[in-house]
Amino acid sequence: MDNIALVGMASIVISGLTIAIGSIGPALGEGRALSQALSALAQQPDEANTITRVLFVGMALVESTAIYCFVITLILIFANPFWTYVVEQASTNGG
Amino acid sequence: MDNIALVGMASIVISGLTIAIGSIGPALGEGRALSQALSALAQQPDEANTITRVLFVGMALVESTAIYCFVITLILIFANPFWTYVVEQASTNGG
Amino acid sequence: MDNIALVGMASIVISGLTIAIGSIGPALGEGRALSQALSALAQQPDEANTITRVLFVGMALVESTAIYCFVITLILIFANPFWTYVVEQASTNGG
Amino acid sequence: MDNIALVGMASIVISGLTIAIGSIGPALGEGRALSQALSALAQQPDEANTITRVLFVGMALVESTAIYCFVITLILIFANPFWTYVVEQASTNGG
Amino acid sequence: MDNIALVGMASIVISGLTIAIGSIGPALGEGRALSQALSALAQQPDEANTITRVLFVGMALVESTAIYCFVITLILIFANPFWTYVVEQASTNGG
Amino acid sequence: MDNIALVGMASIVISGLTIAIGSIGPALGEGRALSQALSALAQQPDEANTITRVLFVGMALVESTAIYCFVITLILIFANPFWTYVVEQASTNGG
Amino acid sequence: MDNIALVGMASIVISGLTIAIGSIGPALGEGRALSQALSALAQQPDEANTITRVLFVGMALVESTAIYCFVITLILIFANPFWTYVVEQASTNGG
Amino acid sequence: MDNIALVGMASIVISGLTIAIGSIGPALGEGRALSQALSALAQQPDEANTITRVLFVGMALVESTAIYCFVITLILIFANPFWTYVVEQASTNGG
Amino acid sequence: MDNIALVGMASIVISGLTIAIGSIGPALGEGRALSQALSALAQQPDEANTITRVLFVGMALVESTAIYCFVITLILIFANPFWTYVVEQASTNGG
Amino acid sequence: MDNIALVGMASIVISGLTIAIGSIGPALGEGRALSQALSALAQQPDEANTITRVLFVGMALVESTAIYCFVITLILIFANPFWTYVVEQASTNGG
Amino acid sequence: MDNIALVGMASIVISGLTIAIGSIGPALGEGRALSQALSALAQQPDEANTITRVLFVGMALVESTAIYCFVITLILIFANPFWTYVVEQASTNGG
Amino acid sequence: MDNIALVGMASIVISGLTIAIGSIGPALGEGRALSQALSALAQQPDEANTITRVLFVGMALVESTAIYCFVITLILIFANPFWTYVVEQASTNGG
Amino acid sequence: MDNIALVGMASIVISGLTIAIGSIGPALGEGRALSQALSALAQQPDEANTITRVLFVGMALVESTAIYCFVITLILIFANPFWTYVVEQASTNGG
Amino acid sequence: MDNIALVGMASIVISGLTIAIGSIGPALGEGRALSQALSALAQQPDEANTITRVLFVGMALVESTAIYCFVITLILIFANPFWTYVVEQASTNGG
Repeated sequence: MDNIALVGMASIVISGLTIAIGSIGPALGEGRALSQALSALAQQPDEANTITRVLFVGMALVESTAIYCFVITLILIFANPFWTYVVEQASTNGG
Repeated sequence: MDNIALVGMASIVISGLTIAIGSIGPALGEGRALSQALSALAQQPDEANTITRVLFVGMALVESTAIYCFVITLILIFANPFWTYVVEQASTNGG
Repeated sequence: MDNIALVGMASIVISGLTIAIGSIGPALGEGRALSQALSALAQQPDEANTITRVLFVGMALVESTAIYCFVITLILIFANPFWTYVVEQASTNGG
Repeated sequence: MDNIALVGMASIVISGLTIAIGSIGPALGEGRALSQALSALAQQPDEANTITRVLFVGMALVESTAIYCFVITLILIFANPFWTYVVEQASTNGG
Repeated sequence: MDNIALVGMASIVISGLTIAIGSIGPALGEGRALSQALSALAQQPDEANTITRVLFVGMALVESTAIYCFVITLILIFANPFWTYVVEQASTNGG
Repeated sequence: MDNIALVGMASIVISGLTIAIGSIGPALGEGRALSQALSALAQQPDEANTITRVLFVGMALVESTAIYCFVITLILIFANPFWTYVVEQASTNGG
Repeated sequence: MDNIALVGMASIVISGLTIAIGSIGPALGEGRALSQALSALAQQPDEANTITRVLFVGMALVESTAIYCFVITLILIFANPFWTYVVEQASTNGG
Repeated sequence: MDNIALVGMASIVISGLTIAIGSIGPALGEGRALSQALSALAQQPDEANTITRVLFVGMALVESTAIYCFVITLILIFANPFWTYVVEQASTNGG
Repeated sequence: MDNIALVGMASIVISGLTIAIGSIGPALGEGRALSQALSALAQQPDEANTITRVLFVGMALVESTAIYCFVITLILIFANPFWTYVVEQASTNGG
Repeated sequence: MDNIALVGMASIVISGLTIAIGSIGPALGEGRALSQALSALAQQPDEANTITRVLFVGMALVESTAIYCFVITLILIFANPFWTYVVEQASTNGG
Repeated sequence: MDNIALVGMASIVISGLTIAIGSIGPALGEGRALSQALSALAQQPDEANTITRVLFVGMALVESTAIYCFVITLILIFANPFWTYVVEQASTNGG
Repeated sequence: MDNIALVGMASIVISGLTIAIGSIGPALGEGRALSQALSALAQQPDEANTITRVLFVGMALVESTAIYCFVITLILIFANPFWTYVVEQASTNGG
Repeated sequence: MDNIALVGMASIVISGLTIAIGSIGPALGEGRALSQALSALAQQPDEANTITRVLFVGMALVESTAIYCFVITLILIFANPFWTYVVEQASTNGG
Repeated sequence: MDNIALVGMASIVISGLTIAIGSIGPALGEGRALSQALSALAQQPDEANTITRVLFVGMALVESTAIYCFVITLILIFANPFWTYVVEQASTNGG
């Protein structure tokens, strides 16, 4: 039954760390972009439309790297092929 | 009964670390954006509406990465499929 | 009785580290925003109302990531499902 | 008697580290805000009242994250549910 | 059956870490570029077309390094040749 | 007698590290505030009273996080409940 | 059968880390170059052609270091001479 | 006799590290304040009295965190209650 | 057969880490140079020829350190004298 | 005789590390102050007396944290109460 | 045969790390110099000859530290006296 | 004879690390002060005498922290009381 | 024969790390000096002779610290007294 | 014979690390000073004599900390009292 504990622990540990580490970069990057956008708005209020449009499209692109991490995290928790295999094996072995 | 201790410990450790590490990036990013917003407000008081609207929409986007971490943390504590499996197994085995 | 010691230790260690690590980001982020707010106040004393309102709403948003950590810490200490399970198990086993 | 030593050690170690690590962020953040406040005072002596009021309300908010850590530290030392459980268990077992 | 646990754990751990670490660089790089683009827009609103075109082509190039990581992560989870070999071997050995 | 050595060592190690780590943040934060205060004094000698008052009230607030650490350190050395318990236990066991 | 697990694990671990670590430098470097390019465009819109040409040729050069990492990653996963040798040996030994 | 070696070693190690780590923050903070004081003196020679008074009072406050560390170090070397207990115990046990 | 696993693992691990670590420096260095080149182009469009020539010759020099790493990586994978020796030895020993 | 080796090693290791780590902060802090003093001298040659007096008094204060470390180092080498106790004990036990 | 594996592994590991770590400094240093050279070219196009000559002579000097690392790497792979000795010894011992 | 190896190794390791780590701070601090001195000389050539005198007295003070480390290093190598004790003990025991 | 493997491995590992770590500082320092030299050339083309002379004499001084590392590396590989002693001993013992 | 291997290895490892770590600080410090000297030369060509004299005297002082490390390295390799003792002991014990 060791395999179940080992694979389960690895899945838990990594699912948490993936989203935790993976949220640092996007959060800092988006914060920087947002901060500059506000400075640009104060400088050129007439271009508010262009600036906010570019800002949100760009932030979506940055957010995408956080989404990759979130997807992998969810796969590791709810659709983990390694866990599935190990559980099946355990049940067929009377585990 | 080892499996229960191991999977439980991993869940506790990672649920805490996920939200702890995951709060660093958004907090710094939001702090930066907020700080620039105040500077922009002082520079262009007439654009206060546009600036605060963009600020809070943007901060919501940054906050989203903290929310991902919080969701994963809650899943790991209250809806952890690995823990559920291990507990079930323990009870069917006469625990 | 090992399970109790292990799960207990993990809960203690992580409850402390979660709030400790989780307080670094918000404290720095709020400090930065506050510092810029004071600079903005000195620059535009007439906008003091707008600036302080945006400041405190924004700081509440940043503080929210510290609150997430505090909530998880309290759950881990006072409403820890893993600890509950292990204690129950120990008492039914004549612990 | 191992459980007592282990849970006790974990409580001691984490109670100290929580407040130690948790004091870094607030101290730096408050130092930054304070430093900017003094610069703002020199720039706009007439706004001294507004500036110091915002400064101390804001610093209280930053200090709050240090307070969270201090509270958790005191709980871990003087009202630690895990330690209570382990000590009780030891005494009922003739510990 | 050890091989299965070991190779499975390694795959889980690395698939998560790859995308987590690999998202830091692109997110920061894109955030910087986006932030400068907004500043450039505020400076030269008439060049909005050229600026946004160069911005998104460039961000796609930066995003490509995150894509490499995502591809490797998916390969490690769903098309992992080492896991395939080990599973096959286990089944032929009556594993 | 192991418990005594273990709990004693943990208390010694953490009492020292708590005050050592906990003195870094306040010292840097106070240094920064003090440095800015001197710069503000040179800029606005007429406001020396307001500046030094705000400076020392603010530094007291920053110092408070160092005081938290110092208090915990002293509790761990001279009023450590875990050590008390372990010593009592040892003496009742003829330890 | 140990050799297979060991060499397989090493290949998995390193293939992921190589591309993950290897994507940090290029992503940051390209983000910096791109960010400066946008600033240059805003400064000299008439030189847009020269600037974008130099930008993309230069970014290709920077990207090349990420490509090296990607190539090594793919070699380690799909054309790994050490894995090939170990698998062959295992099959000839009836492994 | 192990207890004596363990508690002694912990005391030695921590007494040294406490003052070593604890001297980094105050030294840097005081250096910064001193450096700004000299700059302020050059800018406003007429305020030399106010500046140097604030400087030395402030540096005393910063120095206080180093003093905390020094006090704990001396307590750990010359008035260590844990060491005292262990030595007594050893002598009553025929050491 | 241990030697084969050990030398093989070391070769795999280091081949990946060499190119991964070795790509950080050149990528950052080239990104910096490229970024300055674009700024120089915007400042002196008439010197575009000289600037791009110096840029690409210089980047080739920087790239050379990445090439050294790539060469060593390929040698470690495809022409590794230590691996060759160990494989030969294994085959002569009937390994 | 183990106790002697252990306590001796700990004393050697920590005596060296204490002064080594403890010299980093003061050296950097003094370097910074000295560097600013020279800049101030160039700016206000007429205040050379005040500046150098404040500089050397301040540097003495910074140096004091290095002195604390040096004193602890010398105590650990030449007047170490733990070493004295262990050596005595060894000689009374017939060493 | 252990000696062969140990010395071989150490040689592989260090040959890779030497060139990988050793390429960081020169790449960053050369990138900085190159970047400044381009800025200098844009500022003083008439001095292009002097600037590029000094640049490439200086970069050769910086490159020399990378060359030292490359030479040591090649010596460790192809002319390693320790490996030679161990292999000889193994063959004379019938290894 | 273990004691001799252990105490000897600790002395060797720490003597080297003490001077190595201890040289970082002073070297950086002196480099900074020296660099500022040259800038001050260029700004106020007439004050060359005062500037160089303050520079060299100040650098001597900074150097003093390196000297502390050097003295401790030499004591640990040539006048190490722990080594002396252990060697004596070994010779009287027929070591 | 262990001694040979241990001393050999230590020599290999350290010879590589010495030159690798030792090349970081000089490369960065020289890069900085070179970069400033180019900037100085652009500012004062008439002083090209003085500037390049000081530059190359200074860089030689900086390079000298890399040379120290290179010399130690070569001594450790080709004239290592510890290796010589161990090899001699092994041959006289029939090793 | 263990003592010889242990003391030998410690000497090799530390001799290399001492000079490697010890060269970082001086190289960076000298690079900074040299870089400022060139900038000062460009600003005040008439003071070239004073500037270069102060530069080289100062760099010699900075270099001295590298020399300390080099001296300790050579002592550890060629005049190591611990190695001498251990070798003597081994030969008198019939080694």
